[in-house]
Amino acid sequence: MSLIVQKYGGTSMGSPERIREVARRVQRFVNEGHQLVVVPSAMSGETNRLLGIAKEINPDAEPRELDVIASTGEQVSIGLLAIALQKLGVKAKSYTGWQVAIKTDSAFTKARILGIDEANVRRDLAAGHVVIVAGFQGIDDAGNITTLGRGGSDTTGVAMAAALAADECQIYTDVDGVYTTDPRIVPDARRLETITFEEMLELASLGSKVLQIRSVEFAGKYKVKLRVLSSFTDVNSTDMGTLITFEEDETMEQAIISGIAFNRDEAKLSVLGVPDKPGIAVGILGPIAEANIDVDMIIQNSSTEGLTDFSFTVHRNEFKRAREILEGKVKPAIGARAVVGDERIAKVSLVGIGMRTHAGIASKMFGALARERINIQMISTSEIKTSVVVDEKYMELAVRVLHREFELDKEPTQEKMKP
Amino acid sequence: MSLIVQKYGGTSMGSPERIREVARRVQRFVNEGHQLVVVPSAMSGETNRLLGIAKEINPDAEPRELDVIASTGEQVSIGLLAIALQKLGVKAKSYTGWQVAIKTDSAFTKARILGIDEANVRRDLAAGHVVIVAGFQGIDDAGNITTLGRGGSDTTGVAMAAALAADECQIYTDVDGVYTTDPRIVPDARRLETITFEEMLELASLGSKVLQIRSVEFAGKYKVKLRVLSSFTDVNSTDMGTLITFEEDETMEQAIISGIAFNRDEAKLSVLGVPDKPGIAVGILGPIAEANIDVDMIIQNSSTEGLTDFSFTVHRNEFKRAREILEGKVKPAIGARAVVGDERIAKVSLVGIGMRTHAGIASKMFGALARERINIQMISTSEIKTSVVVDEKYMELAVRVLHREFELDKEPTQEKMKP
Repeated sequence: MSLIVQKYGGTSMGSPERIREVARRVQRFVNEGHQLVVVPSAMSGETNRLLGIAKEINPDAEPRELDVIASTGEQVSIGLLAIALQKLGVKAKSYTGWQVAIKTDSAFTKARILGIDEANVRRDLAAGHVVIVAGFQGIDDAGNITTLGRGGSDTTGVAMAAALAADECQIYTDVDGVYTTDPRIVPDARRLETITFEEMLELASLGSKVLQIRSVEFAGKYKVKLRVLSSFTDVNSTDMGTLITFEEDETMEQAIISGIAFNRDEAKLSVLGVPDKPGIAVGILGPIAEANIDVDMIIQNSSTEGLTDFSFTVHRNEFKRAREILEGKVKPAIGARAVVGDERIAKVSLVGIGMRTHAGIASKMFGALARERINIQMISTSEIKTSVVVDEKYMELAVRVLHREFELDKEPTQEKMKP
Repeated sequence: MSLIVQKYGGTSMGSPERIREVARRVQRFVNEGHQLVVVPSAMSGETNRLLGIAKEINPDAEPRELDVIASTGEQVSIGLLAIALQKLGVKAKSYTGWQVAIKTDSAFTKARILGIDEANVRRDLAAGHVVIVAGFQGIDDAGNITTLGRGGSDTTGVAMAAALAADECQIYTDVDGVYTTDPRIVPDARRLETITFEEMLELASLGSKVLQIRSVEFAGKYKVKLRVLSSFTDVNSTDMGTLITFEEDETMEQAIISGIAFNRDEAKLSVLGVPDKPGIAVGILGPIAEANIDVDMIIQNSSTEGLTDFSFTVHRNEFKRAREILEGKVKPAIGARAVVGDERIAKVSLVGIGMRTHAGIASKMFGALARERINIQMISTSEIKTSVVVDEKYMELAVRVLHREFELDKEPTQEKMKP
């Protein structure tokens, strides 16, 4: 008997029929003798509907109240799933975030989980109940309702699995696993049986929508075995989706490159002709940070004749605001020559744990892009990823070229060497 | 400066525009220097929508889970009203039932309020906030979410007013007060400026939909000054609706009859030819009570030749079940001759505190009905009401006849005698 935490996304909970389907899937695991904690999201579209009404009433609403409103979607879901299970004769009991309690900080609309009182949940599990816990929400020290931000139900699932030391956390969604890249762009994209936690982290942060990044961080931190599966397969399907492992030796596939992530959510800003002296970076990024604008890639070239160029990317929604800060505050303060920006960029990233030990990945990547005459505007690397910024219009071409170049459509060689 | 509790019903909260309108009305009272606690219902249709989905999934759902689901409607409303007030520059903070906390028993879907911890609300009022409390919901000893049953938001409003010793509890709805009877049936129906708590209790229990009966009981028990007003008047309207007073001497109108209530929610059951001996009533009604079926009117005729007939009314939804119990259990057990029932009945009631001191009201009532050839099937009286059961098809005629007979369209004589 295992203890399994299952998280079901909004499309999995999208209609009464879908909810009945989730209940049947949960029942199957119960019948197999497992203990189940189930974390459902709000029915798809519900949270947006509620926040749409809120925005119509007040576009600058206090986030505390937005959390009161937004958290109701998941509360409805836990009740509906509980009664769907009861209909099948399965004992089930729902818990809101505050009932568990899932304790968070007070950062409304993007709270972080600080701890979980799992005693009640354990008691109900021991009594033979399926325990259904509302995703996406918690309670702060002062008793306020908080939410964890978009995709927060993944984090709830992983956190519950960590608190209960569950054997596995299964994330059910509308895709059947993690792919080498988005199959809508590369039809040859291949589903991965396993991927390491670090690779998943890079893929998640680079725009893959399969898992919320914080849930992956959480899984890594607390060594939660995470699996991505589809809730749209037959209830009795033995398809096991993609397993996210935290130990490399668990990985059966030893591909150098696991996947290609991409996004066009970012915009590029450059401060040109900056006098090269200590304190430039903070002089430029300090005011940006003060305005609560997150910065992703940061590039500073070595200087020529005492002047340097400094570039970084921000989310496209923040582009105008960031540009105004650079023009209005930063440029006069540090005596830069000019500020230029580009919203029409895309970031394409190769991700793979094998990069650590294999040289030449980056040059192979740049060569493949050069052959297609795709100009690289920025480069950024980490131990297991290499990202380039290119003109937005070349994004899909770049992804396809790299997918082919690194033969991601083929099973990794190690698998072929099996006896 | 007064402390006012305002309750807004579902139609008052029915759309973003309506919610903005409620916020403007609250703001007006704040500007006049009052402290405000506001209790909104769910947006109209929302609770039914949610329970409809629940019923589709499981018609026999556990009530605990139904309350988890149904309580979200009011939670959305408190958040939306809070941000609507914030938009107007009014400090506002929302509370769910458990956040207040409003403590109830564990009778899910029809819980009763046991007590209110009002310390947090008092603190926020003192800090200059409008405090918005979710209607219809509470929390039991075990930390479960409970709801108070249909119309429960009225009870929440009155209970908050009682706990805070508020100066007045204003119930805003889609009608502008309490009428002598339903204006849709009697166009001459007149709005009452005041009505006593006892009269309101009778009117509420007899089918008037203006106020939930338990909220009126609560108001009477805790001496809460209650006022029914329309939220559809101009925000600055000085119309004061109908005041429900708990002291007779506050009543300016001393009408003998205040109003006529009616409903066709009931069905009649008779057990015929019952041997007249001690224990009949419990023999018949015991099994009905055990099945949790509420009984309204009960009539037992004096016996003829040792046999008597025993009649009572139940809610029409319970008619079949009650009849089966009488046929299957009661009839053989007590040796009755037959069980007969009628679903097509209506109850019409005259209500008025003046009945206490004025003789002949009942005979005047029966005479008026007789002149229209309306047969009276059952009669039941209390100190301030006289109810008759008639064939359903005569209900509206009976209401109109009695409204005219008792001249309810005219101002009471006492008012005319003013100097």
